[in-house]
Amino acid sequence: MTTLINTRVLLVNRPRGKPKASDFCIDQTLISSSAPAGGILIQTTHISIDPAMRGWMSDAKSYLPPVKLGDVMRATCVGVVIASGCRAGIHSSNNISVNTCNKAENVRVGQMVKCDVGGVQTYVSISEDGMRHVKPLPQMAHGISPSAYLGVLGTTGLTAYFGFYRVGLPKEGDAVLVSGAAGATGSVVAQIAKRIMKCRVIGTAGSDEKCKWLTDNDIVDVAINYKVAGKSLSRVIREAAYPKGVNIVFDNVGGPFLEAALSNLALGARVVLCGAISQYNSDSSISPQTITGPRNYMNLLVKRASMKGFVVFDYRKEYRHAIGELSKYIANGRLIHSEYVVEGIENFHTALMTLFDGTNRGKAVLKVSPKNFIKANL
Amino acid sequence: MTTLINTRVLLVNRPRGKPKASDFCIDQTLISSSAPAGGILIQTTHISIDPAMRGWMSDAKSYLPPVKLGDVMRATCVGVVIASGCRAGIHSSNNISVNTCNKAENVRVGQMVKCDVGGVQTYVSISEDGMRHVKPLPQMAHGISPSAYLGVLGTTGLTAYFGFYRVGLPKEGDAVLVSGAAGATGSVVAQIAKRIMKCRVIGTAGSDEKCKWLTDNDIVDVAINYKVAGKSLSRVIREAAYPKGVNIVFDNVGGPFLEAALSNLALGARVVLCGAISQYNSDSSISPQTITGPRNYMNLLVKRASMKGFVVFDYRKEYRHAIGELSKYIANGRLIHSEYVVEGIENFHTALMTLFDGTNRGKAVLKVSPKNFIKANL
Repeated sequence: MTTLINTRVLLVNRPRGKPKASDFCIDQTLISSSAPAGGILIQTTHISIDPAMRGWMSDAKSYLPPVKLGDVMRATCVGVVIASGCRAGIHSSNNISVNTCNKAENVRVGQMVKCDVGGVQTYVSISEDGMRHVKPLPQMAHGISPSAYLGVLGTTGLTAYFGFYRVGLPKEGDAVLVSGAAGATGSVVAQIAKRIMKCRVIGTAGSDEKCKWLTDNDIVDVAINYKVAGKSLSRVIREAAYPKGVNIVFDNVGGPFLEAALSNLALGARVVLCGAISQYNSDSSISPQTITGPRNYMNLLVKRASMKGFVVFDYRKEYRHAIGELSKYIANGRLIHSEYVVEGIENFHTALMTLFDGTNRGKAVLKVSPKNFIKANL
Repeated sequence: MTTLINTRVLLVNRPRGKPKASDFCIDQTLISSSAPAGGILIQTTHISIDPAMRGWMSDAKSYLPPVKLGDVMRATCVGVVIASGCRAGIHSSNNISVNTCNKAENVRVGQMVKCDVGGVQTYVSISEDGMRHVKPLPQMAHGISPSAYLGVLGTTGLTAYFGFYRVGLPKEGDAVLVSGAAGATGSVVAQIAKRIMKCRVIGTAGSDEKCKWLTDNDIVDVAINYKVAGKSLSRVIREAAYPKGVNIVFDNVGGPFLEAALSNLALGARVVLCGAISQYNSDSSISPQTITGPRNYMNLLVKRASMKGFVVFDYRKEYRHAIGELSKYIANGRLIHSEYVVEGIENFHTALMTLFDGTNRGKAVLKVSPKNFIKANL
């Protein structure tokens, strides 16, 4: 049995406000190069950087428990299986078949997998019980990178798919307003809305460059730079959605955007709550609590509208179908996806910050660098 | 043709914050004692005092246009028909039947009617076109006052009925949290929830006396005085709804209550937005805008919950059925209703203020006093 050096990013402080580099600690620890019985060992290639991470760092109950201080930061990753603990065919002395392999048997060494509990680290050791969080990736279609399974074919794409279809309940011709439209989830929502459901799509983003990308690639009908619009955001949305207002709001950001959106609802509008990234770094011990709630939420009454939250995991049983649909959209050119890749596990904090400072366009991914794999000299 | 003196309450200023007595003017004006052709003349007996009035005083579009400055304050009233403009049977010179009566023909002199556009005044002259806002009251059942048609059998009762059943989507055994539970709408919601749908009902009210009334009359299972609870309101609700949280929130008040409610949602909870009376007097020119929005609205995401507004008028076609149901609930003793009556049209402002200072219990009604009918000495 040889030993590997696992480079890990640990959460060591609960951030107040924006996470600081010092809230994390990068360590190296020894790890066995063989897999646990019935489990596998994964060498990570890509780590998903998600807005939800900010919530996991808080000491408050949410749909998942907080990451414990001193633990590896939670993350979804893709990687290659480098060892398997599958022991099928080994029989015990009393001739009863001992198959510890039932969970690892579909996963072979050399195969690419996605792991929901991978964490920000170079190697992931998965126990037999942990195998339920591991999914083998299908044979990659031409032009699709394994990292797509962290984005457009992963949680962010599925979030867009189920949030828009199931909570937004779109109809052809609806006016759809998407915040963070150049982001991982927002850009998928906007494209499904515009190209599949034939909706009129208004998207907001935080730079002229992102807005140009949105319109140049025909992802939205109208792109609004919310930083330029400032206090007139509501008026700018009103003009874009004239005269009927917006039928669906897909909100990733919260804050002033949400108020501007609620001021422009059509009768019977559906507001899909997906995130509140403008608010996640509020310096509050009460979570989930934003800095400001939408003061005009009573527009929901005037417009007979609803505001509804959802968690993509609830649709787990339908993931396979949805991934099939999204893959088709990609294959026939109706869905383009964009990744913002930061290389080197030591740059986790930098990659995370791109979500909050608006640098990233599309799905943020941390790519593990060859330099991150250090040989153990034992 | 004789002449009557109509005593009217006019809106003369748009209130900033709480309406002041000086925002209204009481005047006397002459009015014909006969009815317009095809219409009727009503002598008002009771005027409905509703939280929605505050919105109508604001200069902002809502589901109804604002009351114009100088106009009679909008109100629903009940009263007796004292003249009819029905001219059925009169034939014109060329022998073609002129029936200007099609809209007034179901309404006879001496009959009690309800009028949605009555306004705060002693006499209401209704044109033929206005007859669509007039409904004859059915023969009064024993113990039911005509004013019930302003409350439990009127808009407030219907609001409770449709908001609870259609937006709240109750199931037997649900935990239901009602704010303003001693109020006109809240007390009906609480009783339907507890007695018809067998839910566990938690109600909030603003005094120990109201809480005692709620529990003494078996209207709620748990009554919470939100003034005593203060900042621990969320904890008190948590204990009352332990362990699963609340399945339905029926909110009449907004503000800190709504935040406390959103902190205690069960999975898949429905938040019914009916009103925000704690917030209506915010000194804001942007309407509907509350002083504070619910900062923890993202709990809707965590709990896969929805927050939905409704306007009772949308269910107009089903009013008759709902009034029948509510009447049955009353007849078999499952629904009690309470009225808070202020007498004298000159006391309109006082009656209105009881909604905001928490004095009233049950439906607030302004009863026209015999002294309000002044003889014209012409």
